[in-house]
Amino acid sequence: MSSVNLLVNGVAVDTVSARDRGFQYGDGLFETIAVHRGTPLLWEQHAQRLLASAVRLGMPPPETALLRAEADQLCRGVERGVLKIILTRGVSGRGYRPDASVPVTRVLSLSPWPDYPPSWSGEGVAVRLCQMRLASQPRLAGLKHLNRLEQVLARAEWDDEYAEGLMQDESANVVEGTMTNIFLVEGTTLRTPDMTRCGVEGVMRGAVLEQARRLGIACRVGPVTAIQLEHAGELFLTNSLIGLWPVRRIENRSYTIGQTTRKIQQAIRDAGCVA
Amino acid sequence: MSSVNLLVNGVAVDTVSARDRGFQYGDGLFETIAVHRGTPLLWEQHAQRLLASAVRLGMPPPETALLRAEADQLCRGVERGVLKIILTRGVSGRGYRPDASVPVTRVLSLSPWPDYPPSWSGEGVAVRLCQMRLASQPRLAGLKHLNRLEQVLARAEWDDEYAEGLMQDESANVVEGTMTNIFLVEGTTLRTPDMTRCGVEGVMRGAVLEQARRLGIACRVGPVTAIQLEHAGELFLTNSLIGLWPVRRIENRSYTIGQTTRKIQQAIRDAGCVA
Repeated sequence: MSSVNLLVNGVAVDTVSARDRGFQYGDGLFETIAVHRGTPLLWEQHAQRLLASAVRLGMPPPETALLRAEADQLCRGVERGVLKIILTRGVSGRGYRPDASVPVTRVLSLSPWPDYPPSWSGEGVAVRLCQMRLASQPRLAGLKHLNRLEQVLARAEWDDEYAEGLMQDESANVVEGTMTNIFLVEGTTLRTPDMTRCGVEGVMRGAVLEQARRLGIACRVGPVTAIQLEHAGELFLTNSLIGLWPVRRIENRSYTIGQTTRKIQQAIRDAGCVA
Repeated sequence: MSSVNLLVNGVAVDTVSARDRGFQYGDGLFETIAVHRGTPLLWEQHAQRLLASAVRLGMPPPETALLRAEADQLCRGVERGVLKIILTRGVSGRGYRPDASVPVTRVLSLSPWPDYPPSWSGEGVAVRLCQMRLASQPRLAGLKHLNRLEQVLARAEWDDEYAEGLMQDESANVVEGTMTNIFLVEGTTLRTPDMTRCGVEGVMRGAVLEQARRLGIACRVGPVTAIQLEHAGELFLTNSLIGLWPVRRIENRSYTIGQTTRKIQQAIRDAGCVA
């Protein structure tokens, strides 16, 4: 593994300015990327999301070739690891007003692979339903931005008794996990919540939808009610690090791990999406 | 003025860890405090809000005596300036889960007094009505936390043609400005929005309510509709730096600056709330 594990604007330091708008306001974006044998997986999809998200926040577009060069520098020789890219609106004076002339701050960091039990991919996970709700904010919906207090407060609701917590919106529709997207299997159809009012459009969510369509599985993207959740035949969670975890239990309610879940799990592995 | 203008955990440096949860997630709180002749104004109120807010976020309570000692160190000899205190949930490993054993990060910074035209206190300001809405999130409502993308996007809507922008919630009720609280004068009554679903409970807002009650002015704290805004006799904005700005215009609609506004403006000056 490379001895450098943090690059701030290309320099191997582990600090950022205390006046950076990322620290002052959470004014920025991030990507969390699985690294396997020196390669950041689903790179194009992550770079594309970062670019599209920067446009939505009115930030200068990231230089993706430069990000890739720095990512390669960090990931060289890494068997399995986590690459995180943070982009912020840089260091500016006091006040919320963005200054387009200020260069963005880019932080790339490499972390050890998380120690999730390997059985979670095979035997599935137990999850809770969080008390903490997601606020409806269409202007930020879908983005992986740095304002993550809702997820922090949701994750504070349990210790180790669950692998993940599901979050609902104000209308009690299920939107996502604190760090994952959720999919339901209803008969032969796959359903996942839309991200038009809150939630993060995960890169692995996109990969799953792509693989499902390739496999001829019908996909519906739209609200998921508590009743739909209860009656789902199969359930699973996704993100760029875990790939796919089947859900075997939500609090006291059990689910079976079925064929559709296994087919998609295999498909994203075969497509090289998973570390 | 002191030559040091930034203290990070008591040390005169201008950087924080790139792995700080303030930078990673906006997981923290802040206070913006007016400094006059070496003294941070309304200190007890700011310290009290920080303490109460830390409790709500489940953060360890700040050591307010230590914060005060560091504030005094920065403010010594300063005629007029801005003291900002940031508290975050410190530097922890990857993931949203808070770790109560991690010490908080405290950042105190001193900035020059902002160059608002002095006429704004006397002759009033023109403000806009922002397109950007505030999401309803009762768990974060009232707090001056570090998730400020809504304010950043709202402030990006105009350049210098307005002094401030007003923000509405999903129901089109007016909640606050991007950096101020708002008050309406309706006959002999003062009205200001409640902060139960979104918004920041400003320290100057609290001081204004206290002074109004002292002056025998009836105060109503509750939703402010667009119609109430339109029909208000007087309007003003407050925060810890500006004190009170009368509003003379919202886009094309004019307001008069009346006796109640002037009485309260004088009262907060007399009470030593304004730099």
